[in-house]
Amino acid sequence: MLGASGYAGAELLRLLARHPGLRLEWAAGESTAGQAVGERYPGLAAAYPDLTICTADEGLAKGADVVFMALPHGHSAPLAERGAASAALVVDLAADFRLTTAEAWTTWYGSEHPAPERLGTWPYGLPELPGRRDELAGAARVAVPGCYPTAALLALAPLLGAGLIEPDGIVVDAKSGTSGAGRSLKDNLLFAQADENVSPYNVGGHRHTAEIEQELGRLAGRALAVTFSPHLVPMTRGILATCYAQLAPGASDEDTRACFGASYGREPFVDVLPSGQWPRTRAVATTNRAQVAVVTDRRTGRAVAAASLDNLVKGAAGQAVQCANIALGLDETAGLDLVPPGP
Amino acid sequence: MLGASGYAGAELLRLLARHPGLRLEWAAGESTAGQAVGERYPGLAAAYPDLTICTADEGLAKGADVVFMALPHGHSAPLAERGAASAALVVDLAADFRLTTAEAWTTWYGSEHPAPERLGTWPYGLPELPGRRDELAGAARVAVPGCYPTAALLALAPLLGAGLIEPDGIVVDAKSGTSGAGRSLKDNLLFAQADENVSPYNVGGHRHTAEIEQELGRLAGRALAVTFSPHLVPMTRGILATCYAQLAPGASDEDTRACFGASYGREPFVDVLPSGQWPRTRAVATTNRAQVAVVTDRRTGRAVAAASLDNLVKGAAGQAVQCANIALGLDETAGLDLVPPGP
Amino acid sequence: MLGASGYAGAELLRLLARHPGLRLEWAAGESTAGQAVGERYPGLAAAYPDLTICTADEGLAKGADVVFMALPHGHSAPLAERGAASAALVVDLAADFRLTTAEAWTTWYGSEHPAPERLGTWPYGLPELPGRRDELAGAARVAVPGCYPTAALLALAPLLGAGLIEPDGIVVDAKSGTSGAGRSLKDNLLFAQADENVSPYNVGGHRHTAEIEQELGRLAGRALAVTFSPHLVPMTRGILATCYAQLAPGASDEDTRACFGASYGREPFVDVLPSGQWPRTRAVATTNRAQVAVVTDRRTGRAVAAASLDNLVKGAAGQAVQCANIALGLDETAGLDLVPPGP
Amino acid sequence: MLGASGYAGAELLRLLARHPGLRLEWAAGESTAGQAVGERYPGLAAAYPDLTICTADEGLAKGADVVFMALPHGHSAPLAERGAASAALVVDLAADFRLTTAEAWTTWYGSEHPAPERLGTWPYGLPELPGRRDELAGAARVAVPGCYPTAALLALAPLLGAGLIEPDGIVVDAKSGTSGAGRSLKDNLLFAQADENVSPYNVGGHRHTAEIEQELGRLAGRALAVTFSPHLVPMTRGILATCYAQLAPGASDEDTRACFGASYGREPFVDVLPSGQWPRTRAVATTNRAQVAVVTDRRTGRAVAAASLDNLVKGAAGQAVQCANIALGLDETAGLDLVPPGP
Repeated sequence: MLGASGYAGAELLRLLARHPGLRLEWAAGESTAGQAVGERYPGLAAAYPDLTICTADEGLAKGADVVFMALPHGHSAPLAERGAASAALVVDLAADFRLTTAEAWTTWYGSEHPAPERLGTWPYGLPELPGRRDELAGAARVAVPGCYPTAALLALAPLLGAGLIEPDGIVVDAKSGTSGAGRSLKDNLLFAQADENVSPYNVGGHRHTAEIEQELGRLAGRALAVTFSPHLVPMTRGILATCYAQLAPGASDEDTRACFGASYGREPFVDVLPSGQWPRTRAVATTNRAQVAVVTDRRTGRAVAAASLDNLVKGAAGQAVQCANIALGLDETAGLDLVPPGP
Repeated sequence: MLGASGYAGAELLRLLARHPGLRLEWAAGESTAGQAVGERYPGLAAAYPDLTICTADEGLAKGADVVFMALPHGHSAPLAERGAASAALVVDLAADFRLTTAEAWTTWYGSEHPAPERLGTWPYGLPELPGRRDELAGAARVAVPGCYPTAALLALAPLLGAGLIEPDGIVVDAKSGTSGAGRSLKDNLLFAQADENVSPYNVGGHRHTAEIEQELGRLAGRALAVTFSPHLVPMTRGILATCYAQLAPGASDEDTRACFGASYGREPFVDVLPSGQWPRTRAVATTNRAQVAVVTDRRTGRAVAAASLDNLVKGAAGQAVQCANIALGLDETAGLDLVPPGP
Repeated sequence: MLGASGYAGAELLRLLARHPGLRLEWAAGESTAGQAVGERYPGLAAAYPDLTICTADEGLAKGADVVFMALPHGHSAPLAERGAASAALVVDLAADFRLTTAEAWTTWYGSEHPAPERLGTWPYGLPELPGRRDELAGAARVAVPGCYPTAALLALAPLLGAGLIEPDGIVVDAKSGTSGAGRSLKDNLLFAQADENVSPYNVGGHRHTAEIEQELGRLAGRALAVTFSPHLVPMTRGILATCYAQLAPGASDEDTRACFGASYGREPFVDVLPSGQWPRTRAVATTNRAQVAVVTDRRTGRAVAAASLDNLVKGAAGQAVQCANIALGLDETAGLDLVPPGP
Repeated sequence: MLGASGYAGAELLRLLARHPGLRLEWAAGESTAGQAVGERYPGLAAAYPDLTICTADEGLAKGADVVFMALPHGHSAPLAERGAASAALVVDLAADFRLTTAEAWTTWYGSEHPAPERLGTWPYGLPELPGRRDELAGAARVAVPGCYPTAALLALAPLLGAGLIEPDGIVVDAKSGTSGAGRSLKDNLLFAQADENVSPYNVGGHRHTAEIEQELGRLAGRALAVTFSPHLVPMTRGILATCYAQLAPGASDEDTRACFGASYGREPFVDVLPSGQWPRTRAVATTNRAQVAVVTDRRTGRAVAAASLDNLVKGAAGQAVQCANIALGLDETAGLDLVPPGP
């Protein structure tokens, strides 16, 4: 795997340590090459007693059947070709192949895409979206969604796909723990700055907006624009997306609940909560599960749908493993936790 | 004062301890009568070395020029008459006299209002709303707003009053620390349940919706319905309200910023943040200040406005003192902190 | 299992859900009987979709090969006899059979022990203590240690057993997350009271002192008295015990490190940290591991030894499973996590 | 003042903003020179609307009657001479003039002291220590103690001074919020690393040991060595020091309590808690107060004494203001909070 220095990479190491069908061959990390895994991550010392983090060049020279890439955005595309030479499957946790057009990439990421001809050829790795699981089966490449889009799409996709909400005027208000910002030395991520504080950031300009719009637009059959406001809350893990949309004419509370039931009834990782209960981030922490709930507000003609997940698991490393399981024909839940520690 | 057992009452005690123009005569508390203030609140022992919490009857028998009531909803109305007998000013922190019609009370609080003929006669104590400060000057009665409405209205009122946003389709997504739920022994308020968790509650059904709609409707000149979703976040103090509204035709980013500047430029307790900065709850903790910011999103034709405040100060006890200062003709900032501890 | 309502019981349910050699037959809970497991613990719904919490009578009537008891102190002894009728193994997480004399029980727990004749017949379930693992192999009864004693003994036992520290004058300063106090509705456990606060409690009088003294005395070959101060810190899980002892004449830093290495080198659940690193609670969260470290301070002639563990796992449910694994001849690590989520 | 970039400097700015007898002339900060105070600290914008942070050279050129220095250790001594040229009072929050011998400085700080001839001439600014308040009255120079020594000395000094505890074998186990480590971008201070974690650091080697030993030695009349273990706990503000010492022959619980009562009965900033209560950091947060308590344990012949304080106030900026008040003949409590926000 590539990208062992960051939080998503560390989580991948944790999940792969007990995966029954995958065995880690090497772990490459830019800033930590040369360190023992147990030095960088004392908690992983027992699982990888003899593994030293290597460079990307060293890892790619060795090759592997499956290559996971947990790199900063823009770093995956150049390496993907090299990783692809020997790998039957490349799973990218970065944004490089999520968007399907070069225009969208340039608009939101501010640069030319290095391999525009490949855009749209990597299946979007959110298996619970209509049609996506089939695309992932046997796939050689997977673009794993961002953490915020995973939460927002799990809350909104069934309703939009079923025509129960209007495509225009959707609002996504998302709350994330600080691990979502990575293990980077920034002033606003210091405990003494983040503790006892809630604050929005990048309102209207967060890059994950593009993914949410792309996937919702695919379901709506036309382009749409979403208002997306991420917030930082004082916790380590977890994302909650609270989503607001205008109900389609005639759509009732029973319709929306039935829609969730039909969409997620057989999904191993999505729990539809009974009426009156709302998703909690703690209830899914460290697992690959998501909780979802929806209510319709007759007074305002609006649906409120929410989803919670662990940003490092279902929002990153766990979803990558889930996608790899599907692509490789393994049990979809292999190596993934279903039960959170509680409390 | 009445209601010394709870968090808002304790905060009132703290603020009154150093108020230059008010001196506490007695503090009544239902569940704590007979305890020394310093026993219930060790931190207040130095400020009130000789004060014992009394019963409401004992307190009202003594009387006072100003009576603050920090009681559970529905308890103030019956006592207000008795407190009124001797008090030149009654400041109620509960909901009893915030709504102006008996219908609204019954709809949201589920009971008959005990003094419907008095509804609408207590000025709504949010001095920063258009016209409210004048009503408060010299008032004998004040209904202090709820914590969520204070945040939502500070973010939305100027824009709606200026016709820059549409009255329909407003969404208020609010995040509160756990002290907002009071000092009550509930499972979901335990540290081990609330820590590392974000969750919505009472979506579409929170009683504060009525206040928000009433005051926004007053500014819009007609009834309107708001979608309001409160959330509990793992911190002790603070509320952040992130509000979404459709921009009126032609309304620009400059318009919304200019509107905030004009509305709050001379307000001692409201800080309009420069472009790119967003309200933080930590930045106003323990003070009577609020931070507000607004951005317009051309892609979606929507305004996003946010406000942060300390739910126990500007959202409760501090605002009560501010209103009392105005009613009594004192300096509006007397006894109130302007500078937060940082970090 | 008995005691499904509390935190330790919930953790047992989590661990048993994926134990390869144990299958839950029933879960009894006093205050939650009649609820579905998934109602009480939404995160466990997927693991136990059809299980309803029963009463102790119902469970014991069904019987089981192995009975885990996670009950309040004093409740296990009476039930142990009934559970014993059919069970090949009874594992008690409470204090009832930890102390070996009725005098000690009465001194620290303030009541007559209900089955004094059985005291001393249940092996003390801390497998890493000298001789204890052998006693546990094939045992029919196990008394699982308290969370604080587990941490204190892991830090001190090797040094005292090797004669490197003096038996007199030992100080144990322990810090615990709030889940150690159970899921009880107490004012000091509310988020708004426990957050941003550190405080000692029960200094010199905590019941776990008796266990620590008993087990250390066994190693020292004579009675001894320990100063034990527990503290509550603002986190959910985890215990850190920092222990202070006078060095025996001639004991060096090399001696103490070598002692830890020899004692724990082959232990699957104890990590001896290299010089300069100190135990962190986060590094072992949700796992059955403990981190230990020791340093000698020449200036003061004192050893400082510390251990961290997850109070609900190695300090309760995990240790119970570990002991059951040993008693039943299963792999000692079966069903137990070795790798923590990180961060 | 010098050192406006850090947490202690920011706290000084907050306290000086409402000090009735001191007015800030300028604030110098190495890394923030040129920024408006309100840009660096939005919460302070209202208090200092027109103040721009200057360089140390610019500030010292202007001069001031009183100069506060909140600089990194080793930076104060060189500047002290320059600040002294015009200042009637220099109050140093760093360690530069706390130790009285060049040997101690070199041992603990690892360098030659730049002004060894001045060591011992700056009164140690802990007014509650025997004799210190008199030294501070009218002083021209003050060395403000470290945060840990303030807590440890408040707990231990009266007992040692009264001969109730033995000078040898003292253990100080201290727990600090992360603001004590300053506003520095270190991995272990990130929210996602510090949250849900307790860990010791620098055991036996923390520089504050020297201060504790110096001041206790002064009271004991001879040199002594202390075992000092600092810990980082997941909160922003606050220090709790739990201290252990052998009781002197014949010393009783009554003696130790009477000693605390006599030592602190008239101190405006020290609260002696009644039997059974223990210091809480939350109870003194943002104030200049400390809580202290002591218990004797007959079983072990040991006294356990604890003190809590806010590391940025009584442990730094507040104590500096308190000392300045004494030195200048102002009311000792001027500008300092006595009542904490609660919760």
